[in-house]
Amino acid sequence: MSRIASSRVLDVRFPTSLELDGSDAVNVDPDYSGAYLVLTTDAGDSGYGLVFTAGRGNEVVAAAIESVVALIPDSDVESLLDDLGAVSKALIHDSQFRWIGPEKGVAHMAAGAVLTALWDLKARRAGLPLWELIANLTPEEFVAAVDFSHLRDALTEDEALEILRRAEPGKAERIAELKASGYAAYTTSAGWLGYSDDKMVTLAKEAVAEGFDLIKLKVGGSVEDDVRRMKLAREAVGPEIKIAVDANQKWEVHEAAPWIKAIGDPDIYWIEEPTSPDDVLGHARIRREVAPIKIATGEAVQNRIIVKQLLQAEAIDVLQIDATRFAGPNENLANLLLAAKFGIPVCPHAGGVGLCELVVHFSFIDYAAVSASQDGRVIEYVDHLHEHFVDPVVVEGGRYQAPSAPGASGEMYEKSVERWTYPGGPGWVELFESGQFSR
Amino acid sequence: MSRIASSRVLDVRFPTSLELDGSDAVNVDPDYSGAYLVLTTDAGDSGYGLVFTAGRGNEVVAAAIESVVALIPDSDVESLLDDLGAVSKALIHDSQFRWIGPEKGVAHMAAGAVLTALWDLKARRAGLPLWELIANLTPEEFVAAVDFSHLRDALTEDEALEILRRAEPGKAERIAELKASGYAAYTTSAGWLGYSDDKMVTLAKEAVAEGFDLIKLKVGGSVEDDVRRMKLAREAVGPEIKIAVDANQKWEVHEAAPWIKAIGDPDIYWIEEPTSPDDVLGHARIRREVAPIKIATGEAVQNRIIVKQLLQAEAIDVLQIDATRFAGPNENLANLLLAAKFGIPVCPHAGGVGLCELVVHFSFIDYAAVSASQDGRVIEYVDHLHEHFVDPVVVEGGRYQAPSAPGASGEMYEKSVERWTYPGGPGWVELFESGQFSR
Repeated sequence: MSRIASSRVLDVRFPTSLELDGSDAVNVDPDYSGAYLVLTTDAGDSGYGLVFTAGRGNEVVAAAIESVVALIPDSDVESLLDDLGAVSKALIHDSQFRWIGPEKGVAHMAAGAVLTALWDLKARRAGLPLWELIANLTPEEFVAAVDFSHLRDALTEDEALEILRRAEPGKAERIAELKASGYAAYTTSAGWLGYSDDKMVTLAKEAVAEGFDLIKLKVGGSVEDDVRRMKLAREAVGPEIKIAVDANQKWEVHEAAPWIKAIGDPDIYWIEEPTSPDDVLGHARIRREVAPIKIATGEAVQNRIIVKQLLQAEAIDVLQIDATRFAGPNENLANLLLAAKFGIPVCPHAGGVGLCELVVHFSFIDYAAVSASQDGRVIEYVDHLHEHFVDPVVVEGGRYQAPSAPGASGEMYEKSVERWTYPGGPGWVELFESGQFSR
Repeated sequence: MSRIASSRVLDVRFPTSLELDGSDAVNVDPDYSGAYLVLTTDAGDSGYGLVFTAGRGNEVVAAAIESVVALIPDSDVESLLDDLGAVSKALIHDSQFRWIGPEKGVAHMAAGAVLTALWDLKARRAGLPLWELIANLTPEEFVAAVDFSHLRDALTEDEALEILRRAEPGKAERIAELKASGYAAYTTSAGWLGYSDDKMVTLAKEAVAEGFDLIKLKVGGSVEDDVRRMKLAREAVGPEIKIAVDANQKWEVHEAAPWIKAIGDPDIYWIEEPTSPDDVLGHARIRREVAPIKIATGEAVQNRIIVKQLLQAEAIDVLQIDATRFAGPNENLANLLLAAKFGIPVCPHAGGVGLCELVVHFSFIDYAAVSASQDGRVIEYVDHLHEHFVDPVVVEGGRYQAPSAPGASGEMYEKSVERWTYPGGPGWVELFESGQFSR
């Protein structure tokens, strides 16, 4: 019997705005950041959770994580870990705290960090990477981890069990295949809006040389720039490489289709975040207007209830789950089940800081235990900030290798955390003193 | 020329869970709370803003308000107050901070508190109650205060101008009428789920005697209780009084219609919050299934983009705006315009702490300058905690009287704030020491 003995919540920020890494039509100058949680038991082991943010506001998420930690039921650790579905509901449906969501934004992300830390601890105690722990749950255990509230008009517990039972045959073989061959990645590293044309072209060619067959460009700044960059990228990579575009919510609903037509490439692989992530009906309209080009969204979708509606409204072709905006592994299992029910592929959003590390687990779970398919499925990859993680992702030949270390892969090196804690860490103090940043 | 010289953000909570005031199927034990903001200029005057919450989590909203205050553009106060539309966009679309929304939840509510405080200051400087200040804006000034982003497929600036210009004739007469006769109220004071049958019946009769012709019952705990309470309430008030019911998001989409049919009163005036506030498609389905009973929602709707979709999907008959979940007066002006465009009445949510005080202004604006109609329109009223406000609402004969003091009416008495600051105020210390509450 052990208890949760302490929690540390840290506001960790990296000065990525100096290089315009991560710049797009809406996020013009992000400082990739993590509101970082370490839960430590009196047995001495720890679980690690994280919420990715773009800089300012990271302190608010950190405050929310402190508050959600206080909602963890007062039980011994093993009984918490035995029923993380119940813990999820206790955190998310707290009768007072839910008012400040419900189930969205800062409060929901904070619940996600706490749940990620608890799943991390559970996987570490089992000696398994999170994906393998969850892939090996029985269908009943998997369903018990999911909160079906406000989903049941689209997906019931029984339907979920049926999906999971259908995937039981061949599961061991698929797990072995994942360990041997990994999972397809695509890269956004070339396409940030703040990069020069030359840098974009060079990086696009490098991406192809590294084995990626799908790259992504940020669009939505100006039509002229988008037309020029799309042509340059297409010339650089040739007709065989798929190019997706990402507007990061920039457009009004009625603007999206004309803009896309103006870009003028009939082979755009998908259009990502054409408008507000809240706009289910808007995505459905845009999808009708640009068909057969695919619509993708999800990285800023607030919860499973919006995911449900995007699927019900036939508004998307690709669901892009995020590891830290949804309420942790529990809600992402719901998302995988919803996508399987509606036959829509899950292609996770990643990048930022720690998102690649955390999110790959869900695609691996999806193939092993839910959809049992990799068709049309690919995980985003952005090549930065991995050096701060104890168990960083490995991408080789355009494929994510299977995470093998026990846990959920969100643990950062202590020296990174110390250096980049905001605003007092020595990395930040140096930037303030040199005048490269002002507080 | 004056500047904003200081801000105070306070976590103020009232121990309402002791009496089960405000109890419903989801909010079983709220401690009505306000994350309270005072912005003071170096000219010595102040603006007051507030976010209502249910207790736990109030500290997170307070932290977010501190962070949003830091985003206020660094200009002199008069130039800020001259263009609160621009201030609204600066707070809400900040390139980094928006990640933790976007435009929803804690971050959005916090922006609302800051905007409420600035509008309050503007109205005080003009010597007018907020509703009268805004009702007397020109159509162009009104439109400049609104953020049309992600609305324009449903409502453009030009359409908004047309709505406002149509309401110009007769505006002075309607303002005079509002000052003379006020605006219809309805009461929820009788119907809290935690009240005994006897208390509910007594309060329902009192409400009718006080002049209300619409009362509201909380439902969704159990069908048996709802059937019994509805019968008792109907017997108590007679057939002429309208009874609405409120499920506070309790039901799955497919559960709502059968439950309502089981309650068995064909004259239910509206059904409020039948399911998740995020579920546009769910509300549309429920509305089709229970027609001609009306569907109402809004108090937990996160932003104007969901409001837009509820209207586009013909999912609601009544829009219930809230004063502190949306991003302040600016977003509620957008909501009034959207409702007018779609011909749906606005019947604001109120209660909590300070919500009546803040929200009445918007119904008064709606009648004076937007819809120019009071047909089917009524403002919620709950009779508690008004004694803490410097400019409390006055309800007489079932009607809200026009606010007449300068400002937005969110200022609390300093002695109330001091007594109920959580957890260190003397009111709380006494409750902890007496054992009636534990921290």
